[in-house]
Amino acid sequence: MTLPAYSALTTVFTRLYRYQHLGAFMGWDQAAMMPPGGNEARGAALAELQLLMHQTLTDPALPALMTRAGSENLNDDQRASLHEMRRDWAPANLLPARLVEAQSLAGSRCEHAWRTQRKGNDWPGFLANFREVVTLAREEAHTLSQAQGVSPYDALMGKYEPGTRSAEIDAIFGDVKTWLPGLIAQVRDRQASEPVLQAQGPFATEQQRALGTDIMGLLGFDFSAGRLDISTHPFCGGVAQDVRITTRYSDDDFMRSMMGIVHETGHARYEQRLPRDTAHLPVGRARSMGIHESQSLSFEMQLGRSPGFLALISPLVKKHLGDQPAFDATNLARLYTRVNPGFIRVDADELTYPAHVILRYEIERALMEGDIEAEDIPALWDEKMMQYLGVDTRGNYQDGCLQDIHWTGGSFGYFPSYTLGAMYAAQYFACIRQTHPDLDTQVAAGDLTPIFDWLEQHIWRQASRWETGELVQRATGEALNPAHFRAHLEKRYLGA
Amino acid sequence: MTLPAYSALTTVFTRLYRYQHLGAFMGWDQAAMMPPGGNEARGAALAELQLLMHQTLTDPALPALMTRAGSENLNDDQRASLHEMRRDWAPANLLPARLVEAQSLAGSRCEHAWRTQRKGNDWPGFLANFREVVTLAREEAHTLSQAQGVSPYDALMGKYEPGTRSAEIDAIFGDVKTWLPGLIAQVRDRQASEPVLQAQGPFATEQQRALGTDIMGLLGFDFSAGRLDISTHPFCGGVAQDVRITTRYSDDDFMRSMMGIVHETGHARYEQRLPRDTAHLPVGRARSMGIHESQSLSFEMQLGRSPGFLALISPLVKKHLGDQPAFDATNLARLYTRVNPGFIRVDADELTYPAHVILRYEIERALMEGDIEAEDIPALWDEKMMQYLGVDTRGNYQDGCLQDIHWTGGSFGYFPSYTLGAMYAAQYFACIRQTHPDLDTQVAAGDLTPIFDWLEQHIWRQASRWETGELVQRATGEALNPAHFRAHLEKRYLGA
Repeated sequence: MTLPAYSALTTVFTRLYRYQHLGAFMGWDQAAMMPPGGNEARGAALAELQLLMHQTLTDPALPALMTRAGSENLNDDQRASLHEMRRDWAPANLLPARLVEAQSLAGSRCEHAWRTQRKGNDWPGFLANFREVVTLAREEAHTLSQAQGVSPYDALMGKYEPGTRSAEIDAIFGDVKTWLPGLIAQVRDRQASEPVLQAQGPFATEQQRALGTDIMGLLGFDFSAGRLDISTHPFCGGVAQDVRITTRYSDDDFMRSMMGIVHETGHARYEQRLPRDTAHLPVGRARSMGIHESQSLSFEMQLGRSPGFLALISPLVKKHLGDQPAFDATNLARLYTRVNPGFIRVDADELTYPAHVILRYEIERALMEGDIEAEDIPALWDEKMMQYLGVDTRGNYQDGCLQDIHWTGGSFGYFPSYTLGAMYAAQYFACIRQTHPDLDTQVAAGDLTPIFDWLEQHIWRQASRWETGELVQRATGEALNPAHFRAHLEKRYLGA
Repeated sequence: MTLPAYSALTTVFTRLYRYQHLGAFMGWDQAAMMPPGGNEARGAALAELQLLMHQTLTDPALPALMTRAGSENLNDDQRASLHEMRRDWAPANLLPARLVEAQSLAGSRCEHAWRTQRKGNDWPGFLANFREVVTLAREEAHTLSQAQGVSPYDALMGKYEPGTRSAEIDAIFGDVKTWLPGLIAQVRDRQASEPVLQAQGPFATEQQRALGTDIMGLLGFDFSAGRLDISTHPFCGGVAQDVRITTRYSDDDFMRSMMGIVHETGHARYEQRLPRDTAHLPVGRARSMGIHESQSLSFEMQLGRSPGFLALISPLVKKHLGDQPAFDATNLARLYTRVNPGFIRVDADELTYPAHVILRYEIERALMEGDIEAEDIPALWDEKMMQYLGVDTRGNYQDGCLQDIHWTGGSFGYFPSYTLGAMYAAQYFACIRQTHPDLDTQVAAGDLTPIFDWLEQHIWRQASRWETGELVQRATGEALNPAHFRAHLEKRYLGA
């Protein structure tokens, strides 16, 4: 059976996939390799590429092809594939090329300047570039919102977490806000009397790197199809066939780079194990950012901070960083579950992390809905940090509202994905533990296959075959249920 | 005054320049960073990019714009710029998109397999992919040849060395063949009794890298606009604003990485000092591959192996690699001028290097003109290596005809650029010495400005403003004169 329209579409989307390949590595290079002098030319080249991808998606031949393909005798997989093509195609056709190019350029400029402005605690300098980023993002949100019949913020969130609405996020985060502050207080109280040994540095980068590489091997990272490098802001980039993860090292703290590597390896394995036969099509991509974070947080939080895993890697830590009592399994587990409200989201412990996300969600949503302006951010930040975590950020933009890269490039609507990911991960592990009640013992003995097998079967191999809701339902037998997350936290931190 | 057609062309060529930016870094990454699993997806993405650049250059609107721009009131700089646009545009419009894409894919495939085949000494395996590369290159050569009224080989050589004809190369190389074998014999005889100390390894990569970085600094490399990395086959890539050079390290030989870095830094400074105001246009690019090699060889051969320079860096070598008598200036100069016919072109000394180039020129020319077939290469290689250098390469493909990367990707016509570059460099330095008779003393004292100033003024700043012949005439007051090269070799190696 021939499917001429669907086949023609796969040709277009394969071309697009190759352009995305170029963009992925240019972005990786910009963050991990590029010297500062290269930024202007790089920004121009990336904006040109954005424009090209936008032109490809707005080719006037596509609407007719989409319609005809819809009438072809597609099987279920092909129908899902066509659905994902539409998902890329529809918003692109709502946005004018001028806006796409302007966003790319404004984002590059704002992000590049931010790298120095953050160090200089320079909020006014940042604001000068950032206003343009906000204006353009609002224009995007407004345009998408009109066409999709959702709120401006929901339209942006849909880029990362298709189908999720802020009403749902409000309900979930509203619930978290009722019990999280109390839980944090209770755990801190309990931990105050718990002895914990701090590791004694310095830890040379080379040793930290060797430890990280060993752990990546343990976690199944395929080094013939990926690399580990250094960047100021750790991330997972590249393409499924060649996944680039990064971390950062500091001499006096091995814990951050080590668990950062575990986190990014979770993202990486998802990418590396996506099905190869559809890698060139939208349906072959990772489902959403929330699902992506559910993989990194399955690795970092569910597995990585579990006593079994820390028992497993304790000998590796000693091998690479030297034998000290702080590296004993029990102490490592205490170190990695220590709750301590602080300024920085990416350094936050598992328990205070959701507070950082909720704060950002509330601010970015108000900003995109037009309820506040960019200059209102610091005051709101200070107020909410004090309210949720009791932390005073006044005047400290560097460790406050200037700390994240997301907004600098115009990525509004991403933050909820982190906490959704943490919740999905808790739900997956509740499932895995049902069939593997001795999971911790197995992990401590070096057998991680129950986890990898479950994720491979239910998440990695599914790519974008199902909508997020259906993916989670099929995987766990129920819709997203934040109760698993709360239960996980109470069990781990209170032994409840 | 408005120049609507010329302005429209600058827009098109600026877009093309941004696409080239993507290609430059994808190529760098492929050689210096990419894990093997990424190659297939990378090859597909690069072929797509090649196709896109070809489409841009074959836009049906361009011919009319070219004609109209030619009638506009352009100043001399703009006229030179238009001329260089035509130089890119004309051949692209002769080659069908199918051929461009097929060449990119066949080249990627052949080069990728070659990386293992070379190690395995697997000529038959290589030949299986290489035949397709040859067929496609001949098709390109034939097509360009018909349109340009030059021989097929000259048409290919014109891509790297515009305007140069093989008749000219024949005359130059024919002359070299009359005196080079005798000179090599004479120098070897003389050096047989000259004591030279070999450096005692091992030399750790980190130390070699630190030494290389110091020397790059001395040579004026701008680290805010470039990097040094590792690749199996050293090269200079990236773009003028962000120049990426590579080298390779071996524990038992610091000499190769050190002088390799000097060589690539010569390429890099040319790129870094090209005029920024025309960086986005063809007229702002480096003039030709021969002129590019004249920069790397000015650094490596004219400057790098001079007694003055080796006296200058001797303390740096001792600082990084430890103090040993072999690192004394006089001994370093002897090590770096030791003549010893060998298998490998890139490891060849200054005197035997031209023989490697002449051999390749003769073979690739015959191959492109259809006088021989790909399977004839090994026998010819063996014969010529024995004839020119007295080296027996029979059965040793690895260190014979499989050693270079050029042919694997279809780059036929490049090799003459190396020896032309060496000749240009000798001619430049003859000029510089006329106004700086104490150049060696100045260099030994750390003053390299006479060299940098001359190159900056006469070569770097000129970009592609002039045809190669005129560039050299304006710089040195005469056309290419190989007598300077011979005189340089006789002076350095015989003290004549």
